[in-house]
Amino acid sequence: MLKLFYSPGAVSLAAHIALEEAGAPYELIRVDFKARQQRSADYLAINPQGRVPALATGEGVLTETPAILVYVAQAFRQAGLAPEEPWCFARMLSVISYVASTVHVDNAHINRGYRWADDPDAIADMRRKAPAVMAADLRLLEDRIGRGPWVLGEQYSVADAHLFVMTWWAEPDGVPLKEFPNLRAHLDRMQARPAVLRVLAQEGLSAR
Amino acid sequence: MLKLFYSPGAVSLAAHIALEEAGAPYELIRVDFKARQQRSADYLAINPQGRVPALATGEGVLTETPAILVYVAQAFRQAGLAPEEPWCFARMLSVISYVASTVHVDNAHINRGYRWADDPDAIADMRRKAPAVMAADLRLLEDRIGRGPWVLGEQYSVADAHLFVMTWWAEPDGVPLKEFPNLRAHLDRMQARPAVLRVLAQEGLSAR
Repeated sequence: MLKLFYSPGAVSLAAHIALEEAGAPYELIRVDFKARQQRSADYLAINPQGRVPALATGEGVLTETPAILVYVAQAFRQAGLAPEEPWCFARMLSVISYVASTVHVDNAHINRGYRWADDPDAIADMRRKAPAVMAADLRLLEDRIGRGPWVLGEQYSVADAHLFVMTWWAEPDGVPLKEFPNLRAHLDRMQARPAVLRVLAQEGLSAR
Repeated sequence: MLKLFYSPGAVSLAAHIALEEAGAPYELIRVDFKARQQRSADYLAINPQGRVPALATGEGVLTETPAILVYVAQAFRQAGLAPEEPWCFARMLSVISYVASTVHVDNAHINRGYRWADDPDAIADMRRKAPAVMAADLRLLEDRIGRGPWVLGEQYSVADAHLFVMTWWAEPDGVPLKEFPNLRAHLDRMQARPAVLRVLAQEGLSAR
């Protein structure tokens, strides 16, 4: 059975939603960040980068949210969580990649600035600037998805699960979603999906 | 015909190599970074993020290196630049995603720290730390690819083109490749491929 290594409310939430939407059989394994379990020898043997998510499959361990999302969509094809046609698939991957490499990276500068700087003042400067950076980068997604209803228009896909984590993070990250009506509506639509509500409950989280 | 918007030696090099390896018909359009052309209204209409690469296709413009690499591999399937089997495809995407979201982001902290901080001292601190961060993150790839010869073992894929840009950047970024024999050997193997040599020549670049 698939095993998802996760931390509540982390970006692993996207993979968790994908598994639940796919109707996949899976087991959840919580990595306790407060106990620094992600840096334990046991976990580093699973994911040498010491991050979540990681998905243990019968063929090996998969890391990186974009890869896990696409794997789940392709392994449970009947759920229709990714388009088959190359252009549509590439459009989906473009949004997923932008979320992973740009918006999620912006977010990481709030609490994980130590990855890229040592000076406490530098880390504080990144934290101060991060909400504005994240807002500017979310603006492109606001314009791109339009009225949707989903990232790809009519077709729901794993890109929606990935975007959801960013919009779910936005307000605590200091980005007021009232300035982003399309993203706010997307967050609301996601939070009306039974699979998303089950996942939030499983992780002990609330809708926002 | 496909049109690739690129800047010499930027990460667009990966998409350029993929197109050349695929035997795709394409036109190169240089975006002049010195003239800040990437921020011009004309270019922002192509890619609102103001970055390269962007690939103009008959169906629209595609951005984000991972999406472009996969699109080229799937649109020119006969070139065999991506595995078809879901697990192998996901492994490829995992490396591409790691390169885009981690190693390339490390590199961006050398000359583009202004994206995440305003204080010149903070930007200088990021630049100082970046080579060590990049080295630590390349270490995971050094271990992961082993003797290869390619990222996926025997099968060459678009992930190799993406990794190549990181290893080609490494020495000027302050990461001595002599400490990374697998990555050094991968760079050498890439620079022995006729398609890669043609691409370097087209961009006016030298092997390293």
